[in-house]
Amino acid sequence: MEIERALQQLESLQKKLYAYHCADSSLYLDAVTTAPSDTSEGRGVAMSILAGESQKLMTCPETKALLDELSARAGELDLVHRREVEELRRSCEQLTRIPADEYMAYKELCNRADDVWHKAKAQDDFALFCPVLQELVDYNRRFAGYYDASKAPYDALLNEYERGVDRKMLDSFFATLREGLVPLIHKIGEKPQIDDSFLHQEYPAAQQKAFADYLMEVMGLDRSHCGLGETEHPFTLEFNNKDVRITTNYDEHNVASSMYSVLHEGGHALYELGIRDDLQYTCLAGGVSMGVHESQSRFYENLIGRSRPFVEAIYPKVQEFFPRQLGGVSAEQFYRAVNKAQPSLIRTEADELTYCLHVMVRYEIEKQLIGGTLEAKDVPVVWAKLYKEYLGIEVPNDRDGCLQDSHWSGGAFGYFPSYALGSAYGAQMLRRMEQDVDVRGAAARGDLTPITAWLREKVHQYGGLMEPADVVKNACGDFSAEDYIQYLTRKYTELYGL
Amino acid sequence: MEIERALQQLESLQKKLYAYHCADSSLYLDAVTTAPSDTSEGRGVAMSILAGESQKLMTCPETKALLDELSARAGELDLVHRREVEELRRSCEQLTRIPADEYMAYKELCNRADDVWHKAKAQDDFALFCPVLQELVDYNRRFAGYYDASKAPYDALLNEYERGVDRKMLDSFFATLREGLVPLIHKIGEKPQIDDSFLHQEYPAAQQKAFADYLMEVMGLDRSHCGLGETEHPFTLEFNNKDVRITTNYDEHNVASSMYSVLHEGGHALYELGIRDDLQYTCLAGGVSMGVHESQSRFYENLIGRSRPFVEAIYPKVQEFFPRQLGGVSAEQFYRAVNKAQPSLIRTEADELTYCLHVMVRYEIEKQLIGGTLEAKDVPVVWAKLYKEYLGIEVPNDRDGCLQDSHWSGGAFGYFPSYALGSAYGAQMLRRMEQDVDVRGAAARGDLTPITAWLREKVHQYGGLMEPADVVKNACGDFSAEDYIQYLTRKYTELYGL
Repeated sequence: MEIERALQQLESLQKKLYAYHCADSSLYLDAVTTAPSDTSEGRGVAMSILAGESQKLMTCPETKALLDELSARAGELDLVHRREVEELRRSCEQLTRIPADEYMAYKELCNRADDVWHKAKAQDDFALFCPVLQELVDYNRRFAGYYDASKAPYDALLNEYERGVDRKMLDSFFATLREGLVPLIHKIGEKPQIDDSFLHQEYPAAQQKAFADYLMEVMGLDRSHCGLGETEHPFTLEFNNKDVRITTNYDEHNVASSMYSVLHEGGHALYELGIRDDLQYTCLAGGVSMGVHESQSRFYENLIGRSRPFVEAIYPKVQEFFPRQLGGVSAEQFYRAVNKAQPSLIRTEADELTYCLHVMVRYEIEKQLIGGTLEAKDVPVVWAKLYKEYLGIEVPNDRDGCLQDSHWSGGAFGYFPSYALGSAYGAQMLRRMEQDVDVRGAAARGDLTPITAWLREKVHQYGGLMEPADVVKNACGDFSAEDYIQYLTRKYTELYGL
Repeated sequence: MEIERALQQLESLQKKLYAYHCADSSLYLDAVTTAPSDTSEGRGVAMSILAGESQKLMTCPETKALLDELSARAGELDLVHRREVEELRRSCEQLTRIPADEYMAYKELCNRADDVWHKAKAQDDFALFCPVLQELVDYNRRFAGYYDASKAPYDALLNEYERGVDRKMLDSFFATLREGLVPLIHKIGEKPQIDDSFLHQEYPAAQQKAFADYLMEVMGLDRSHCGLGETEHPFTLEFNNKDVRITTNYDEHNVASSMYSVLHEGGHALYELGIRDDLQYTCLAGGVSMGVHESQSRFYENLIGRSRPFVEAIYPKVQEFFPRQLGGVSAEQFYRAVNKAQPSLIRTEADELTYCLHVMVRYEIEKQLIGGTLEAKDVPVVWAKLYKEYLGIEVPNDRDGCLQDSHWSGGAFGYFPSYALGSAYGAQMLRRMEQDVDVRGAAARGDLTPITAWLREKVHQYGGLMEPADVVKNACGDFSAEDYIQYLTRKYTELYGL
């Protein structure tokens, strides 16, 4: 086949995959935003069939032949096409190992599980979710074998979210974090605690919504290409680099909740919006990995959003939105309140310092679930045990315990460590960025342009063009947890006068 | 092939078509409800590819062979399967005649056109929409030939919305309507006009939204299966009989606007929700035709919603929603106001009596556009001329003129007559229904259950199992415009003391 013709076919294949991705995303977005409550069955039928068609497309003989030919002629391809072929071949091989009926049934299960999870969480009824969770675990254990039979199942799953990462690396990473952070947390426990009660007055959702609009503006998110919705569990979803959606959730008794979820999801959105145009409608169009993705979201949420200069810069405006609640509160008080470090129940609401402990709980449970040494029915007990052990707190119910997150109900096992990795990547990027950009000065002006420009140049633009580890290396050198621990130590030592 | 295996393949084919339908609907729903403004390009790529895949599925040799075999063995099939095969063969033959690239390009165009129409309407700029409109017309003229080359193009298009209907039938139908209604309209013009100024006070959207929720409750629309959204142009969209969405639009200076659009779209929704379970995920699952669909929407909007007993029944509740605006207004005044007959600009806001004149304007223009005797650029002039001629009013701008409706931008030429046909079907159904059900009594109790039950039995349940004309015949005998004219004559003679 002529190379031009083969490349046209490659483009056509990827556009089709993009179309299936859009269909799936759109049905999912509808499900979690506007769909009536009892509509999951029909949607499950549709989503499962579309997944099946997409799998069929990726594994049919024509696709295989095309990818084999282009792979054999890799020397004639430019970098983008070479990477596309590499990624597509990997998917093709994986999907070929997954039986079609299992693949479709799993898609249907994830749709149903999400529905069941919503109900179980609303009713604080783990028993409702438990059998579905076990089913999801069983599927994921089998799928892990299809992904990479040479790896232990949980390592294979981890690799899907952050290529190259395994339990060995994470065990050591989390041990380093624990070693660095737990003493800090203990020291803070002995100090007078920061008063953050004013964050928990009544904050009407409508005003919080207007405030969220303002925050998106500060972040430089172009609203003609980036929407803001409302869901139980905030998330970011991308169709392409001109169409990204973020969601948040308004807690009328916690103004920081939506504020920091908007900054977090906004970080994800900036990543997706910053990917090069020439990668659109290809398999390289999205963020490269969940770890790198979380490095961006956690960067805007914490390293910028919870920094003193940024809080001081936007605070007069924050007061304008909430004069009744914050009129008598100083910027410094607000800054300290949003950085109060105290072990708590909910991961997405956790402070920067104790956040990774929440991730470790989930990591330990996932390891055991996928390793086959823990059954779904025993998750609540282990959850409570680990929260007691790591965070020193009692878990009063499953709604605020093991039912709090939407990841497992969506079938994502191995995702959680990305949050911790991303946080550490981000700290390392910040340190490197400070050599090129006056980060504190920019944040103090409330102008994130030079910061986003740096991240766009070093990280965003590449999409999936490089491996996750190479993106990190490109932005800040070889990965290490040191910058993250130093950053947190410096910040919290100053905050609490340790 | 064994018949059982063939029927399994038939089911699988239809489920796939259903999945593509869901994907398309979901992307469309997103586009008109929550998508950011500049995102149509990527969505167009996706929608066009999905349409192409769906067409490929319907026209591939395996599908043809399957349908041919089942058609040859029709005697062995039950009624449902026989009708499915009949409908699918018709689609297969049609789609085979449409070149794949044209089909996909048309889908992309419709997506883009909808976007352009929104902008053109917002800016009152017909010139922006004009070239797209001409493109849409050109496509539809070509497609008409693919649909049925033996018919004149506009007749072929009409047939897509109401099988068996053509210009000859419609010319005569509209002539009968004009003959019956225009003298009434003239007589009303000589009478003192009803005061409806209280409908045009300030009605905050939030209260109208709560009122819309109430109206859905009165209609018996189960909210766990039927959602309510907000769009520029109200519409109904169905995924299946357990998942239907309606939308409305809140005009803060016209309480009747959203009220009657909810009753209208609610009628569509009741139809879709009432279709038999065993037809779901098949090609017979939706309402049989647009005419029959509009018979249901116009029934709930007008024959019930604008009837004196129904208005009297719900009016105390209406006053509760709007005490400031309607506290001093009697039920009779309200009833008369929502039935005020006066030529006006906007079809969806038109009174029952002059409504069909709006349809006739569009019918005349479509006839000429598709007939090739009118170009898009001349539409505004002809629009103004016909509004002057039929309704006696001046059209001040294109936003309230030929840009007011979303049908053409969605590619729907030949749809409009369905509204008039449906209105007439509905009046005929009402007359027949009154023989079985105490309609006025039920409306006076604000209990629509027996009315909906009758429609469900006679119309809804069948979905596409019968031809449109047979559904009408089954519910009320051979079609005639007489009941409709009599109904309007009686109602407006009484209202205006003619």
